[in-house]
Amino acid sequence: MKKNIVIVGLGLIGGSIARALQGFEDFERIGVDVSQPTMRYAIENGVVDRIEEDPIQALAQGDLVFLCLHPRGIVDFLAEHRTHFKPGAMVTDVCGVKGAILKGAAVLPDTVSFVGGHPMAGTEFSGIEHSLANMFQGAHYILTPNGQSSPEHIALMERLARHVGCADVIKTTPEQHDAIIAYTSQMMHIIAVSVCDDENLFQYQGFEGDSFRSCTRVAALDVPLWTQLFSMNSDALCAALEHLETHLRQYRQAILSGDTRALSEKLSFSAARKRQMNRLEQQSGAVGRDRTQPRPVRNAERT
Amino acid sequence: MKKNIVIVGLGLIGGSIARALQGFEDFERIGVDVSQPTMRYAIENGVVDRIEEDPIQALAQGDLVFLCLHPRGIVDFLAEHRTHFKPGAMVTDVCGVKGAILKGAAVLPDTVSFVGGHPMAGTEFSGIEHSLANMFQGAHYILTPNGQSSPEHIALMERLARHVGCADVIKTTPEQHDAIIAYTSQMMHIIAVSVCDDENLFQYQGFEGDSFRSCTRVAALDVPLWTQLFSMNSDALCAALEHLETHLRQYRQAILSGDTRALSEKLSFSAARKRQMNRLEQQSGAVGRDRTQPRPVRNAERT
Repeated sequence: MKKNIVIVGLGLIGGSIARALQGFEDFERIGVDVSQPTMRYAIENGVVDRIEEDPIQALAQGDLVFLCLHPRGIVDFLAEHRTHFKPGAMVTDVCGVKGAILKGAAVLPDTVSFVGGHPMAGTEFSGIEHSLANMFQGAHYILTPNGQSSPEHIALMERLARHVGCADVIKTTPEQHDAIIAYTSQMMHIIAVSVCDDENLFQYQGFEGDSFRSCTRVAALDVPLWTQLFSMNSDALCAALEHLETHLRQYRQAILSGDTRALSEKLSFSAARKRQMNRLEQQSGAVGRDRTQPRPVRNAERT
Repeated sequence: MKKNIVIVGLGLIGGSIARALQGFEDFERIGVDVSQPTMRYAIENGVVDRIEEDPIQALAQGDLVFLCLHPRGIVDFLAEHRTHFKPGAMVTDVCGVKGAILKGAAVLPDTVSFVGGHPMAGTEFSGIEHSLANMFQGAHYILTPNGQSSPEHIALMERLARHVGCADVIKTTPEQHDAIIAYTSQMMHIIAVSVCDDENLFQYQGFEGDSFRSCTRVAALDVPLWTQLFSMNSDALCAALEHLETHLRQYRQAILSGDTRALSEKLSFSAARKRQMNRLEQQSGAVGRDRTQPRPVRNAERT
């Protein structure tokens, strides 16, 4: 008998998860979203197999439930629907903070397994029309299993991560996840927006190279989502930013000093670290996405 | 009669310029390099049409001379060979700082035209074996013409920029170039190396997403080259870094304050600026390079 995956929230990541899960074992994909145009888009474009308007009816059928809402949306959804999950259901999320989500998931009854998840992929766009079946190709899939997670559920998530094309599955605690993500993801977004705050930015047009494009790409971010992510992880993020400010200041002082030998040694040190990081990443099989491929075309039928 | 382009220095940029200039008007490409293996590679792989071991003999034939050395190398080459350029020769360079180069070019006799140039393209790799014919596709080509630049030479550079695939030609002063490049290029490299200086960097492996990869890509830099570029533009670069530190600190304070509405407004402001920058860039026709394409394979024959 077919089992059901219910995807709650068909935005960029929910839509991409739904697309990527096509053909995963014997699961049928049911989509739930508060937006009618999004649900219509999902069914017309084969993002899901079925849609359900009522989340309670959807949850009643869900063997695996993917929560793909903004962080506070997930916490609220868990509180509101804690009794609506099917007994034996396995629930996961895709959120970029894990401490707050795990706390929210504590309301779930014992009959439900929860595994926090964070597939490390995305783009600077939002919405189902930008979702991609190959979004997770070569990405890391981070899981934060705990006492609420059944071994069967963890094994399912590992098969699922392989199916959507992830390079590997990293298991960690919510605390460690949030501390590291503050540095490797959230801080990159703060750097990008800070660079764009320069008062003369628009006068620099014509002088951008790929290093500028790469560094600032994510500045065109989804504001409500990132406001939540930054706020829900503010201690770790501020600590990361303080470290960065220190390292930037050290470079500025090395340049100001005029001691080119010292500057050269400092650059050698940093460049060697980056090359070592590249080697570690290559060994893991993780790869970046092609940023120059044409964006998916919006569905002209969408109203 | 065929004219000659002499490319002095067949590294990443010199090699790429040489490749991209194949078929440009009626020019033949002569390559000069101090490295025998590089010259052999250049001729065996059709990077140039001919090689000349002796720069003096090469310059005697050069109607157009491209100086593709590190900044101090260009200044030294100009001083050493000031009397060896063919009368009527047009000389240009590809260097990422312009003030110091223009100063160096002042030694040239009146019989030679000089136009400072900076095609805004590159990769984090060095050497001819990483050179690419399409390196300059969609890039900005910056020129800093002055009293030493003949109108004929400027017109030639504009046709040449089109031939190598550049999106546009930007004309500016050396001072403005250096001030802006400090921000749009040099600072991006200081950000990348500073991010890699975090003491726990290697423990973050497994948690990198594309924002991390994009931001730190250029940290694996050519140390001697960038030591020179940073040192020769230290005032502008340090000023840019101070601005960035201020903007980062403002974001850190906004996050620390816990005022999510203020944080959201601040993010909206920055994200709107980035989107506006994207629009300006799209209008100019400039595009980034595909970073996921396989790297060129090293020539197994190279000794």
